[in-house]
Amino acid sequence: RVLALVEPLHAADIADFLEQIEPEERRGFLLLYSGEIDGDLLSEIDETIREEVIESLPAEVVAEAVRDLDTDDVVDILEDLEASAQGRILDALDMADRVAVEQAMAFPEGSAGRLMQREVVVAPEHWTVGEAIDHLRGAEALPDQFYHVILIDPRMKPQGYVTLGRILSARRDAALRDLAEDSFRTVEATEEESEVAYMFNQYHLISCPVVDAGGRLVGVITIDDAMNVLDEEHEEDMLRLAGVGEEASVLDGPWATVRQRLPWLVVNLFTASISAFVISRFEATITAIVALAALMPIVASTGGIAGTQSLAVAVRALATRDLTSANARRVVMRELAAGAINGAALAAIIGVAGGLIFADPWIGGVLAMAMVVNQIVAALGGVMVPLTLERMGLDPALASGTFVTTLTDVMGFLAFLGLATLVLL
Amino acid sequence: RVLALVEPLHAADIADFLEQIEPEERRGFLLLYSGEIDGDLLSEIDETIREEVIESLPAEVVAEAVRDLDTDDVVDILEDLEASAQGRILDALDMADRVAVEQAMAFPEGSAGRLMQREVVVAPEHWTVGEAIDHLRGAEALPDQFYHVILIDPRMKPQGYVTLGRILSARRDAALRDLAEDSFRTVEATEEESEVAYMFNQYHLISCPVVDAGGRLVGVITIDDAMNVLDEEHEEDMLRLAGVGEEASVLDGPWATVRQRLPWLVVNLFTASISAFVISRFEATITAIVALAALMPIVASTGGIAGTQSLAVAVRALATRDLTSANARRVVMRELAAGAINGAALAAIIGVAGGLIFADPWIGGVLAMAMVVNQIVAALGGVMVPLTLERMGLDPALASGTFVTTLTDVMGFLAFLGLATLVLL
Ligand SMILES: [Mg+2]
Ligand SMILES: [Mg+2]
Ligand SMILES: [Mg+2]
Ligand SMILES: [Mg+2]
Ligand SMILES: [Mg+2]
Ligand SMILES: [Mg+2]
Ligand SMILES: [Mg+2]
Ligand SMILES: [Mg+2]
Ligand SMILES: [Mg+2]
Ligand SMILES: [Mg+2]
Ligand SMILES: [Mg+2]
Ligand SMILES: [Mg+2]
Ligand SMILES: [Mg+2]
Repeated sequence: RVLALVEPLHAADIADFLEQIEPEERRGFLLLYSGEIDGDLLSEIDETIREEVIESLPAEVVAEAVRDLDTDDVVDILEDLEASAQGRILDALDMADRVAVEQAMAFPEGSAGRLMQREVVVAPEHWTVGEAIDHLRGAEALPDQFYHVILIDPRMKPQGYVTLGRILSARRDAALRDLAEDSFRTVEATEEESEVAYMFNQYHLISCPVVDAGGRLVGVITIDDAMNVLDEEHEEDMLRLAGVGEEASVLDGPWATVRQRLPWLVVNLFTASISAFVISRFEATITAIVALAALMPIVASTGGIAGTQSLAVAVRALATRDLTSANARRVVMRELAAGAINGAALAAIIGVAGGLIFADPWIGGVLAMAMVVNQIVAALGGVMVPLTLERMGLDPALASGTFVTTLTDVMGFLAFLGLATLVLL
Repeated sequence: RVLALVEPLHAADIADFLEQIEPEERRGFLLLYSGEIDGDLLSEIDETIREEVIESLPAEVVAEAVRDLDTDDVVDILEDLEASAQGRILDALDMADRVAVEQAMAFPEGSAGRLMQREVVVAPEHWTVGEAIDHLRGAEALPDQFYHVILIDPRMKPQGYVTLGRILSARRDAALRDLAEDSFRTVEATEEESEVAYMFNQYHLISCPVVDAGGRLVGVITIDDAMNVLDEEHEEDMLRLAGVGEEASVLDGPWATVRQRLPWLVVNLFTASISAFVISRFEATITAIVALAALMPIVASTGGIAGTQSLAVAVRALATRDLTSANARRVVMRELAAGAINGAALAAIIGVAGGLIFADPWIGGVLAMAMVVNQIVAALGGVMVPLTLERMGLDPALASGTFVTTLTDVMGFLAFLGLATLVLL
C-alpha cells in the first residue's frame, strides 16, 4: 500500500519521507522497495541516513543505481561514506566514470572540483551551428543536464560558451564564436564551493566550466548544485551564529545533538562566570539595595537582544559581501548612532517606569544611564566582533553569538551596578 | 579614471560598488556614467538606493534602460517605486510589454505572478523537432533566457516541456511529445514565492511555467530568480530570528536602523521585566545569601544559549521541511533527551565548581539542579515555540528568539532562586 502511494512521487519527496519515518519502518520499507531504488533517490537522501540506507541495500542494487548518475552526484554520495563502502561503489562504475570520480575526489572537500560533473558538451571554437547540431545528434550519450556548448581551443582551454537557445535560433551556417555570451567566466577546480555559489548568485550563471591549474577544461558546475551549496552556506551561518555545529540536523539522535551543542554550552558556562564574578564585586551594593538584583538583568537582557540584532545584520552582510572594507567604517558609525538612539529611547521608558515604581528618581536615572551605555556597546560589539573574525581569516558567524551576549551581559551588569554604587550609595 | 576602471565590470559588481560608496560620490558617478546605464544595472541595484538612483537619472536614460529588460525585471524595479515614478517607467514601454507588466503587477506582492517573465517559448504539442527549430529560427525576438520549449494545447494549457538539449540532439522528425521531461510541473500565479523557491530547490527545476486559475500559460519563472528568492527567504529567517525587521540592510542609515530594531527591544524591555518581577519575589533569599545574586545569571545565560541552539535547528528544519507533523513528536522527544544530557553534563561541572568555590556542597547542588531544569526547558522551548507559531499559521522565525530567551531567563531565575529558598534557607 505504501509502495503504491510512493510510486508517483519525485525522488526528493521519497527521500524526505524516508528521512522522517522511524528507523524500523525505514528498514521495512527499503526491504520492499529495494527493486525500485535508483541513483536519484540515493543522491536525494540526507547524509545523516544515507550510509544506513546504502548498507541495508543489496550490493547489486547500489551498483546499478549509481551507474546512471552524473559524476558529481556519485562524488557527493562517496564523500560521506566509509572507505570500504566507497570501494564497493567505485568498483560498480565503468572505467571511464571511475577515473573521473577518482580525479574529482582528489580535489579538496568543499572545492569546485568536488562539485563539478565530468559530463561536458564541447565544440571546437571554429565550428558552425550546423556542425554543432550534427555532432550533438550523433553523440552517444549526452549529460542529463547541459545549458551551454563550451567552445574550446585545441589544448582543451575553454574560450567561451554558447547557450542552447542561441544555437537553436541561429542559422546553420552561423559561427559559434559569434554567438558566444559575454558573461562567460570559468572557475578553478581548487576554488572553494562557497565562492562558486556566490558567483552563480551574483552573476546569474546557469553553468560554469571548471578548469585545472593549466586552464584546461575538467568539468562543469550547474546551477542546481550551486543553489544547493548556497542553501548549505546559509544553514551553516544560521547554526554557527547560534553556537551549533554546522552538521546538526533535525534528524540527529540525542547523542549526536549533544555532540553538536555541548561544546559551546561549556564555553558559555565559563564566559557566564565572568558576569558572576563582576556581580560578586558589587555584593556590598546589592546587600544595601536588594532591588538592584532584580533590576540588573533588564539592562543585560536588552543589551543581549540589541547585540544579536546588530550581529545578524553584520553576518548576513558579510556573507552577501554588502559589508566590505570599503564601507566598514560607515557601518560602524551607523551602529554607534543607532545604538545611541535606541539606548536613549529605552532609557526614557525604563527611567520613568523605574523611577515611578521605586518612587526614587535616582534608581530610574541609573537604569537609564546603564541602558544607554549597554545599547551602544551592544550595537558596536555586534558589528565589530564579526568584522574582526573576518579580518583574522575566521568565519564571522563562528560563535559570535556567545561572544556578543557575554560582552553585553558583562557590560550590562558592570554599568548598572557600577553606576548604582556611585550614585545610590 | 573611475569610469575606465568600472567599464569591464559586470553590472552586479558596478551595482555593489554604487551601494558601498558615499551618497555624494554616488551622485557624482551617476552624472558622469549616466550614458552607459542599462537595464541590467538598474535591476542589480539594491532596493535601498534604487529610488535615489532612478530619480537622479534623466528620464530618457531610464526609459531606454528598462526597454531591454524582460518583464520580470521591470516588475521587480517597479514594485519598490512610488506611483509617479512607476507611471514614468510604464510610459516608456511598448504597448505589449506594458500590458504584460501591468498584468503581472495585478498579482499580489511576493507571488509567482510577480516573479515570472512573460517572454515564453511555446510549441503546439503535436509538433516535431524540425518544426520547432524552424519556428525558433524564424522568431523575431526570443527571451534572453529560456531552457525549455513548453508544449501547449490549443487553449494555451501547458502539457509538458522539452529541454533544449534534447531538441538539439534529437532527429528532426522526432515528436516533441516523446521528448518531454517527466519532472514537468507548473505553478499557479497566485502561489507564494517562497513556495516557488522551495519547489526549484527540492525538484532541481531550471524553469517552471506559470498558469492562471484556468490552467492557461501566463509566464515562466527561471531558476536564477528562484535562487534569489531562496536567498532572501534565508535573510528574512536570520533577521527575524534575531528580532530585526526583514527589510534591514547594512546600507540603511541610523534612523532606518532604529525603526528596524527598536520595536523588539521595547518588547524585550517588558518581557525582561517579568524576570525582574520573579527575582523581586526572592529578595529575602538574596538578602540572606547575597552570593546568589552573582550566581543566578549563570543558569539563565546558559539556558539562553541552549534555547537559541534548539531554536536555530528547528527554524531551519521547518524552512527546509525536514521538520513536519510526521516527525515533530520524535524531534521533541529528542530535544527532551538532549536537554537532559546537556543539563547533566553542565550540572556536573557547575555543581562541583560551585561547591568548591563556596565551600558549600548545597550551593553546588542547587546550581546543578537548576541547570538541569533550565536546560530541559530551553531545549523544549526552542522547538515548541516555532512549532506552535507554525501551527498557528505564523512565521516560526518571527521573534521566537525574544520569546525563547525570555522563557529561559524566567525559568533560570525561578528554578535557581526557588530551589535556593527551599534548600539553603
Ligand atoms: Mg531531504
Ligand atoms: Mg543532483
Ligand atoms: Mg556533499
Ligand atoms: Mg549535478
Ligand atoms: Mg545538510
Ligand atoms: Mg560560511
Ligand atoms: Mg541573555
Ligand atoms: Mg548588491
Ligand atoms: Mg534578473
Ligand atoms: Mg522585489
Ligand atoms: Mg529573470
Ligand atoms: Mg535585499
Ligand atoms: Mg519565511
